[in-house]
Amino acid sequence: MTRWRLTVEFDGGPFSGWQRQDGAPSIQQSIEEAIEKMTGEQVRLHCAGRTDAGVHGLAMTAHVDIAKPLDAHRLREGVNALLRPDPIAVLSASEVDDEFHARFSCTGRRYLYRILNRRAPPTLLRGQVWHIGQDLDVEAMAEAAKHLEGNHDFTTFRSVQCQSDSPVKTLDSLTVERVGEEVHFHVAARSFLHHQVRSMVGTLSLVGRGQWNPADVKDALEARDRQQLGLNAPPDGLYFVKALYPED
Amino acid sequence: MTRWRLTVEFDGGPFSGWQRQDGAPSIQQSIEEAIEKMTGEQVRLHCAGRTDAGVHGLAMTAHVDIAKPLDAHRLREGVNALLRPDPIAVLSASEVDDEFHARFSCTGRRYLYRILNRRAPPTLLRGQVWHIGQDLDVEAMAEAAKHLEGNHDFTTFRSVQCQSDSPVKTLDSLTVERVGEEVHFHVAARSFLHHQVRSMVGTLSLVGRGQWNPADVKDALEARDRQQLGLNAPPDGLYFVKALYPED
Repeated sequence: MTRWRLTVEFDGGPFSGWQRQDGAPSIQQSIEEAIEKMTGEQVRLHCAGRTDAGVHGLAMTAHVDIAKPLDAHRLREGVNALLRPDPIAVLSASEVDDEFHARFSCTGRRYLYRILNRRAPPTLLRGQVWHIGQDLDVEAMAEAAKHLEGNHDFTTFRSVQCQSDSPVKTLDSLTVERVGEEVHFHVAARSFLHHQVRSMVGTLSLVGRGQWNPADVKDALEARDRQQLGLNAPPDGLYFVKALYPED
Repeated sequence: MTRWRLTVEFDGGPFSGWQRQDGAPSIQQSIEEAIEKMTGEQVRLHCAGRTDAGVHGLAMTAHVDIAKPLDAHRLREGVNALLRPDPIAVLSASEVDDEFHARFSCTGRRYLYRILNRRAPPTLLRGQVWHIGQDLDVEAMAEAAKHLEGNHDFTTFRSVQCQSDSPVKTLDSLTVERVGEEVHFHVAARSFLHHQVRSMVGTLSLVGRGQWNPADVKDALEARDRQQLGLNAPPDGLYFVKALYPED
């Protein structure tokens, strides 16, 4: 039995999310079925961070155990061929030792959130950005974001379906920058609560629109109350960028 | 009657091209119908360069004459609302004088061609790049591209359906650069023959793969024979970037 580490890119648009679900297409199911077709084995894929419906992946890390002897090149090429026409691609495959676990070995996760900030709606970027026509105040959003960095009880920014044991997390960094017609949020932490990134970005967007002051974000955080959430941003603009491991 | 200049962005994927055709969706028809719904007038849209099926536009210039008094903001917003769900957006609208003609006043056209050059197929960029898995030699392609710059008879790189009076054109510049996982071709000329950019990029890709030498491109050009064409690149990677006008 060999443990394989996979790096996966996907367009989350057509999927109900990463995790396998009855009667709904998922990234996990598509990849597992491609590997099963290739190997004749029933396999189980584990990932660094399960994504919601519509959320994209630039370099999601996953692992899977396969008994059949394979080389990395053949595994990657074979799975990619079998994944067609799903918009999922294995960027790389490598053998890892049995200690490696895509979820439990992961020591850091990076997300990107993209807002298309212009009057005209997206065309080529449809489904890949959140469109906000009103000009956003990036400096105010950056100031507000500072209140969210650090170790906090993020109950306000947590989905009611969140299964995490504790609402206390350490947000390593949350930076905001204008990139051409877009506004990008770069988010880094060891781990996140369910909907945390989208809840933070949605709330910061109210600051960008001038409806909230930066201090209102601090108040909402300290309230530890989901009712104080400003807004949950749509999944379209969210990208799982990468997972960090001690061995990298 | 007011002449309006429009800057238009579009995802060419779902369309049979810019130009109106019976029984096939076109960008021209979608925009004309949106303006007709808004104004109650029959209008005719002219553009800087008609694009083929699957070719994209980042900032296509077009013009249209409208009798109904409108302001630029209302025209742009109204047309964009009526264009839904087509992936077409009016980025800007401005009044111009009657001398302005999107096609005949245009003194320069810029195209971009994007190749995704990595083993794994595209996911988020599907339909928006040409995927080539084999590692391309960018230096060799750049050297070959130099043979195409300048004033030449481009018969070799011209579609049999081309309606241009003459195959002689001046290619102002054709540069090639690696941008992350992509290879970009930046192409500039006053005007182009039908399929010229795709024919040049397709042929240069053979140099990038090592199947042709840079000098073979010179020979193909000098042959003035469509049969000597290396390859016509697919439309997916082609973008009309912008049109230049003396008044800008």
